[in-house]
Amino acid sequence: MFSYKITARNGRARTGTFSTPHGDLLTPVFAPVGTQATVKTLTPEDLKGINASLVLSNTYHLYLRPGDDLIAEFGGLHRFMKWPRPMLTDSGGFQVFSLAQTRKIDDEGVTFKSHIDGSTHYFTPERSIRIQENLGADIIMAFDECSDPNDHDYSRVAMERTHRWAERSLRAKRRADQALFAIVQGGVNADLRAESAKFIASLGTPGIAIGGLSVGETKDEMHAMLDVVTPLLPEDKPRYLMGVGTPEDLINGVARGVDIFDCVLPTRLARHHSAFAPEGRLNLMNAAFARDPNPIDETCDCYTCKTFSRAYLRHLIIAKELLAGTLLSIHNLRALIRLMESIRGYIADGTFEARVPELLEQWSNNAKRLNDDEQKVEQD
Amino acid sequence: MFSYKITARNGRARTGTFSTPHGDLLTPVFAPVGTQATVKTLTPEDLKGINASLVLSNTYHLYLRPGDDLIAEFGGLHRFMKWPRPMLTDSGGFQVFSLAQTRKIDDEGVTFKSHIDGSTHYFTPERSIRIQENLGADIIMAFDECSDPNDHDYSRVAMERTHRWAERSLRAKRRADQALFAIVQGGVNADLRAESAKFIASLGTPGIAIGGLSVGETKDEMHAMLDVVTPLLPEDKPRYLMGVGTPEDLINGVARGVDIFDCVLPTRLARHHSAFAPEGRLNLMNAAFARDPNPIDETCDCYTCKTFSRAYLRHLIIAKELLAGTLLSIHNLRALIRLMESIRGYIADGTFEARVPELLEQWSNNAKRLNDDEQKVEQD
Repeated sequence: MFSYKITARNGRARTGTFSTPHGDLLTPVFAPVGTQATVKTLTPEDLKGINASLVLSNTYHLYLRPGDDLIAEFGGLHRFMKWPRPMLTDSGGFQVFSLAQTRKIDDEGVTFKSHIDGSTHYFTPERSIRIQENLGADIIMAFDECSDPNDHDYSRVAMERTHRWAERSLRAKRRADQALFAIVQGGVNADLRAESAKFIASLGTPGIAIGGLSVGETKDEMHAMLDVVTPLLPEDKPRYLMGVGTPEDLINGVARGVDIFDCVLPTRLARHHSAFAPEGRLNLMNAAFARDPNPIDETCDCYTCKTFSRAYLRHLIIAKELLAGTLLSIHNLRALIRLMESIRGYIADGTFEARVPELLEQWSNNAKRLNDDEQKVEQD
Repeated sequence: MFSYKITARNGRARTGTFSTPHGDLLTPVFAPVGTQATVKTLTPEDLKGINASLVLSNTYHLYLRPGDDLIAEFGGLHRFMKWPRPMLTDSGGFQVFSLAQTRKIDDEGVTFKSHIDGSTHYFTPERSIRIQENLGADIIMAFDECSDPNDHDYSRVAMERTHRWAERSLRAKRRADQALFAIVQGGVNADLRAESAKFIASLGTPGIAIGGLSVGETKDEMHAMLDVVTPLLPEDKPRYLMGVGTPEDLINGVARGVDIFDCVLPTRLARHHSAFAPEGRLNLMNAAFARDPNPIDETCDCYTCKTFSRAYLRHLIIAKELLAGTLLSIHNLRALIRLMESIRGYIADGTFEARVPELLEQWSNNAKRLNDDEQKVEQD
């Protein structure tokens, strides 16, 4: 039911097709995040319009609200939120550690309090898998523990627990129409990352995730960890770099052999008036755009860019009209999906490696220009 | 450039076509309100999807933000907000009296302070027309004064001023591609309404508006005023009942010879979780809908009803997802537009008058069921 066919390689970058029960994913792929069974402010039609393929949703959030049992009653997430293409759920591990008030963690599982109402809940690897089976995504994740990347001792403890939990997650899994990906951990320690990559690879899952990055480490540290991990992973399985990332992260990740990415950045930036543009990330609230007749990006094929001026978008923002968030989300997601489409083409025609410096220059210039705004938004 | 052709009558109800530079309006018509150059939470594509034809926008709001001069630079409202079908702007009169802090009104005009930043502005009939010419809607309104409906003495003063301002508005108008509608006032006084209807009819404008209703008077008073006014208006001009209304108001208005309506109700209800449904107006936040697999209205052809369950919509509301407002706005607007489509059909086949009691029963039952919610929302 799941197969990964690589159609071209260029350096360590690969392009291919991962087949799922809800259709084929062309990799490398960027997945919009639909935390609460909706990509914020967008309809499934909007997502099809920007050529989204994989959509991620969050087990922790859906377990708490509306409840995975309710979603199962409705035939699973695809039917509940009416997304007919492939979906991925995380294990809830990351959110239990970052969002919830954690009360107790031991080898068996984690007791935590809901960030919504303070109620107490208990997750184990088995429970996470059962919830993800109720949700019914095509790709599901092993329950893992994400450590502080700078604490080597704790990173080892968390990594070893993650390995035991990966085995338990695999044993708990029952549905044949779901692919379980196990997760490489190990913080920013090359030795731990290598050990984890080898162990996780040995489990033979149809795909492998790399967790615990983009959580406070430097870009160089992230690249160094990818340089350690991806060469130790099987060639014929897709690699998913969780919660990453910025346009630069996507380019750097693909160059290091990553196939799947997800991040809230494009939609979160959109709701804070920030848009990816050729001359840099724009804060469209800025008065400079009040009379700007141009689209955000005249090379972009999204509905927002084909239809509206920057002046109109700025007006919506200043007038506090919610439509601004929708229109900017459409553009920002399309920008990253279009970047991935280009990258797939470059890998296929053998030019990707040569283009990496140019792509990075194009997009890192983008990030540098409005770094203050970006900082402000990302702390939001 | 403007012509009104009545194609069928049934009692006092009429159906016809009002031709404008941006296309034909089939009447009776309900116009969604796009106060700030956007129908809240909806794209122009969404509006086309529900078969919206006429969209109203507010002169007072657009004058203050982003400024009518800016919109003129962009070729007018149609091009600025990318709505290719007919548009209507009000004169700003109603908002100056209801939203702004009014400082001084005399025969020449009104000095008021912006509700946004307290800055001082001055509107006259000439200024209102100039602003509306900058905005460039197909149908524009004479500057008028809306009085407290229960104050007879002030109603006469305001009515007489409205008449003088209508003449000045007409003299100020320059663009041939805009139809100026003058406005009948007179509060809830039959004598004043009759006097106003005759005077405004004598001006020969291509359409006539009825203002100052739905501002606190009873439904019976509104009907009584319509019964006085519409028989005194020329048969061959469309009649626009401003800021009305509820589904019942639309049915009652059409039965009394009204052709054009607008109201924020469907979109405002939507943003407060309330939806028009066959069994009554639903507050979709209610726990009763948590596991309801049905659409809001299984007879409805809108995207929301064709796609999503009440359970999913409730989940979005409970999870505070903005998409709920978009999806409910699509449905509520479509419900009223569909009602008007049905009514046009009934007038054409000669059954409308006979169906009025059934239509009122259907929709007033709707209103009665959840009156508390409705009250709460409408005070918002």
